[in-house]
Amino acid sequence: MAQQHLEPTEPVSGHLGPSPTGDALAGYLRSQATEFLRALRQHRESGGTAAGAEDPVDAARALRRSVRRISASLHTFRPLLDPEWSESLRPELAWLSGTLGMEHGYESRLERLLLALHRLSGAVFPAQPAPVGGGPSAPTASTPDRGNLTVGAAKAGALLDRQLTLARTRAHSTALQALGSSRFHAVADSIAVLASEVPLTRTALSTDLQPLATAAQGRLEDAVSALPLVTAGSPYNAEALIHGLSPDPSPHAQDAPWHQVRLLLRLYRYARETLTSSVDVRLLTAGQCLDRHRDASEAASAAAAAARTPRIAPATAYALGVLHADQRHEVEAARFAFQQCWQKQAVST
Amino acid sequence: MAQQHLEPTEPVSGHLGPSPTGDALAGYLRSQATEFLRALRQHRESGGTAAGAEDPVDAARALRRSVRRISASLHTFRPLLDPEWSESLRPELAWLSGTLGMEHGYESRLERLLLALHRLSGAVFPAQPAPVGGGPSAPTASTPDRGNLTVGAAKAGALLDRQLTLARTRAHSTALQALGSSRFHAVADSIAVLASEVPLTRTALSTDLQPLATAAQGRLEDAVSALPLVTAGSPYNAEALIHGLSPDPSPHAQDAPWHQVRLLLRLYRYARETLTSSVDVRLLTAGQCLDRHRDASEAASAAAAAARTPRIAPATAYALGVLHADQRHEVEAARFAFQQCWQKQAVST
Repeated sequence: MAQQHLEPTEPVSGHLGPSPTGDALAGYLRSQATEFLRALRQHRESGGTAAGAEDPVDAARALRRSVRRISASLHTFRPLLDPEWSESLRPELAWLSGTLGMEHGYESRLERLLLALHRLSGAVFPAQPAPVGGGPSAPTASTPDRGNLTVGAAKAGALLDRQLTLARTRAHSTALQALGSSRFHAVADSIAVLASEVPLTRTALSTDLQPLATAAQGRLEDAVSALPLVTAGSPYNAEALIHGLSPDPSPHAQDAPWHQVRLLLRLYRYARETLTSSVDVRLLTAGQCLDRHRDASEAASAAAAAARTPRIAPATAYALGVLHADQRHEVEAARFAFQQCWQKQAVST
Repeated sequence: MAQQHLEPTEPVSGHLGPSPTGDALAGYLRSQATEFLRALRQHRESGGTAAGAEDPVDAARALRRSVRRISASLHTFRPLLDPEWSESLRPELAWLSGTLGMEHGYESRLERLLLALHRLSGAVFPAQPAPVGGGPSAPTASTPDRGNLTVGAAKAGALLDRQLTLARTRAHSTALQALGSSRFHAVADSIAVLASEVPLTRTALSTDLQPLATAAQGRLEDAVSALPLVTAGSPYNAEALIHGLSPDPSPHAQDAPWHQVRLLLRLYRYARETLTSSVDVRLLTAGQCLDRHRDASEAASAAAAAARTPRIAPATAYALGVLHADQRHEVEAARFAFQQCWQKQAVST
């Protein structure tokens, strides 16, 4: 790969000569705002449905992508931006990003859970229930009960499909409503202005961006150093499933610091984008580990939530229990992968 | 440790000067037979119950211990022993070892499963069900459903306790009956004769034991090389839970080669004992990994079997599903540990 790979603990501007200032920030914000407007036009042309010429899923993803970046810049480079403008826009961007992300979240959660059920049972869900006692390894003894468990896996898949598809449909409606709201139009107007005119402070053009990016890096590194990385680096530590059956209403509070690091890593990654066009592949990889951690954590919660549906069959509940634990193992695996990736960065620096 | 640590791929007699012959085998068999008779006397004095002066559990363990070793010697060093005697005794020893081991098996399986449930829910089973929605992390929102899951864990613990305690009680009775049977007395008589007179073949005293021990080692290494060690050495490979919900009547057929290696490793370990008094700590460790593999595999099966009990509550079934997956994860962890241990041996040889 021809791209430069900067170390996260190395000053970002090290490869760039003079330090970038408010000019670079304004350029970055303008280009993200332009991206936003382009994605919005695409989304409108597609009518928010797959019937249009452009894929509305791609358009929605592009919208979220630019919103996240604008929001991150407002946070990281706050001292360079008009405070009143920036403080009023930030919560609106957070609302928009959250609202637009829900549908995709439910969709990918369902896909992850059905894939896991497929792996666990060798069956296809939910369209094609697993053959009971059939297949190439056909049983030689009578196996009504084990067959039952497979029916359980099929039923679990159907239940998750129902619940998450319903949630996704609602999220889709909510997103469409949001995109038609006056609140959204106000945000879009602000971003349209941003595409041509960035409200910098008077001193912004002479302010070095580097210390602010370094501060973002520092917040990331502090949060990482508070993670239980020694445990995470020991394979099969069985931490992720601890208290998986506890009465605690948030049994996976242990995930929160990892989610926090995920957000801080993203903030730092976007800050780097503002300063340099080079991509730090290892930072990307570490972020992907934390995405996987978040996805598995939420999938495990969805399986547990489905198991609380009244009047489900015991076989369905059993399959959901296996699925929950499987996804919690994925959580643990993602932490291990992050630890390996992060340690590699630290060593090679 | 002052003991010599021999490499498993190194000739066992390398540290001993002249190769041991039938004499050494006879000595080993005599001492194991003596152990057997001592344990049997202890067991009888304790009346087979904990009321006696000697612990019947220890006595039963010592009985099994010597039976396994005599049986292994008959297998590995067959060419040195009277074939008729040896062929008639071997199935009897297998029967005895199996019968005596059942009770301990159920007991340790229950203990492992209750410990795992404890870890998963922070509760004590089965005497003290987990507080619903209580504890230091008391919920701030209403959590009837999560509380339900904890009740599920408690009920799962109670169900396993009932089922495995019943099985253990039956195994205890079966073992007591076996020890009072004429079949057992015939075995005990054979072993009593063995304590003074080992039925060697004419050529045994001039036959080198080393090639036979090496052959046992070869069988072990062949079986290990057929294991999926590359996969096992990659943490979180998620292999052990694959097809955990499949309709296959023996979904964990993947465990069989590992169980087979466990038996071959034990045979080789006992063959080494015949030739040298030194202990190979790493061989012991590898064996412990495979014991853990076997225990977790059987515990996972017991949890799955309990989930097939008719008319259990969905919450109970859910907890058993989580427990099953947890133990399958343990299976995977044990394979990883074995791979690490075995690789270390191979590298240091």
